[in-house]
Amino acid sequence: MFVIGERINGMFRDVGKAIEARDKGPIEELAVKQIKAGADALDLNVGPVRGSATENMLWLIETAQAVTEAPLCIDTAKPEVMKATVEACQHPPIINSSKAVEEQLAEYVALAMKTGGSLVALTLNQRGVPHDVDGRVEMGATIVTKAMEGGLNMERLFIDPVILPMNIAPKQPQFVVEAIRQMHMLTDPAPNFVIGLSNVSQNCRERSMLDRYYVAMAIGAGLNAAIMNVLDEELMKAVITAEVLMEKQLYCDDYVTAYLSSK
Amino acid sequence: MFVIGERINGMFRDVGKAIEARDKGPIEELAVKQIKAGADALDLNVGPVRGSATENMLWLIETAQAVTEAPLCIDTAKPEVMKATVEACQHPPIINSSKAVEEQLAEYVALAMKTGGSLVALTLNQRGVPHDVDGRVEMGATIVTKAMEGGLNMERLFIDPVILPMNIAPKQPQFVVEAIRQMHMLTDPAPNFVIGLSNVSQNCRERSMLDRYYVAMAIGAGLNAAIMNVLDEELMKAVITAEVLMEKQLYCDDYVTAYLSSK
Repeated sequence: MFVIGERINGMFRDVGKAIEARDKGPIEELAVKQIKAGADALDLNVGPVRGSATENMLWLIETAQAVTEAPLCIDTAKPEVMKATVEACQHPPIINSSKAVEEQLAEYVALAMKTGGSLVALTLNQRGVPHDVDGRVEMGATIVTKAMEGGLNMERLFIDPVILPMNIAPKQPQFVVEAIRQMHMLTDPAPNFVIGLSNVSQNCRERSMLDRYYVAMAIGAGLNAAIMNVLDEELMKAVITAEVLMEKQLYCDDYVTAYLSSK
Repeated sequence: MFVIGERINGMFRDVGKAIEARDKGPIEELAVKQIKAGADALDLNVGPVRGSATENMLWLIETAQAVTEAPLCIDTAKPEVMKATVEACQHPPIINSSKAVEEQLAEYVALAMKTGGSLVALTLNQRGVPHDVDGRVEMGATIVTKAMEGGLNMERLFIDPVILPMNIAPKQPQFVVEAIRQMHMLTDPAPNFVIGLSNVSQNCRERSMLDRYYVAMAIGAGLNAAIMNVLDEELMKAVITAEVLMEKQLYCDDYVTAYLSSK
């Protein structure tokens, strides 16, 4: 499982304040803590913080990579911010994200090729998120085609089938699981599949529990990456246990410790 | 989810001793506790207790149905014990189990029809448990065909794809999940799918955790029944949460309480 720490996001008040004040301490601490908890990469999102999104992202990149060599996942919906910041990464970045729109995909695939990085592409276009399985799979096919056309190896492609909050869109969790399963058959080898896990439980009371059992279900269907709260120890155990059950990790009685110490 | 309490099994020392001593107290207590914890039915298995398995099972049935009207799941691999005991059930029983062998299936389907009960049929024959997905699905087809021939409604058929301990058969958990998914397509409406959940974690250290994430994965693939440890509260929460995520139960902030109080 490729685990991307979600915590450096300006939507969280402590991170928003740190970005505004250019206070490196809290960002450095969150970077180190997430890696220690098992993150393979760190998502960076400036959120709704005032000022230039580009300047804010450049500062986040600089701050994070001063304390870690882990890949940075540059999380912005704005192409101008992406293009102005992603090359500041000293290590191959994760470009997060392109819509499933041919022109943007072509441009972002080229950017991934240029930087040696990976691309997250959402099954979402100008008309929004498809509310069914088929719409997601069709967009998945578009994404795979454009990645291949641009020479991007499937290992460096992450398809995100866009999970919505289950309290307002109760059919979406099962549709996303089924879409992952079907998209696995688009190509061999398959691309990677990633979700922004916390979205499923947004504004729900039992967030950790919903996230835990949802990620297990999705791993059962072929999910192999998630942007998630790695600081939730029980959630990390859910990921590790689901991987052991799917034989992605070897079983031993101490499999949780074994996984974390292999990082 | 149709939850069958596993606890009244002579393999557990307290139950074995109670059967031998004809001591009703522990059995009554386990029956009531499991129903209170959310069990829809109670599995009864005499285990390796000395004496006549038929007499022991008849005593368990009598003892359990003195304190509950919940369906009893008569769990024996011995046809002579099944035939001599199942009609002692005052309410429609669950016949657990037939192998996927035509002759036994025909006989057990007839028994289910006669008693108004349900049938659990294992994807297992004289040669044992298939070690792949296809073998299970083929046996699933045999089971469905024989049930239809005997007039047994799919609502009263439970296919058990036989989960093995993951520490000695690490590929089996994923194969069982995939077999459930594929067997869902054998017929419309589909039969029910049940597993003896605790088998997956037999002799493993993190039993509750393995059971919890495995049942969530399996529910994501279409599992709708399990013989399990209903007294493990966290495991019950896993079942309820997975069902809410699959939209089998309505979401509300108090969904765990809502599910349990609807019993």
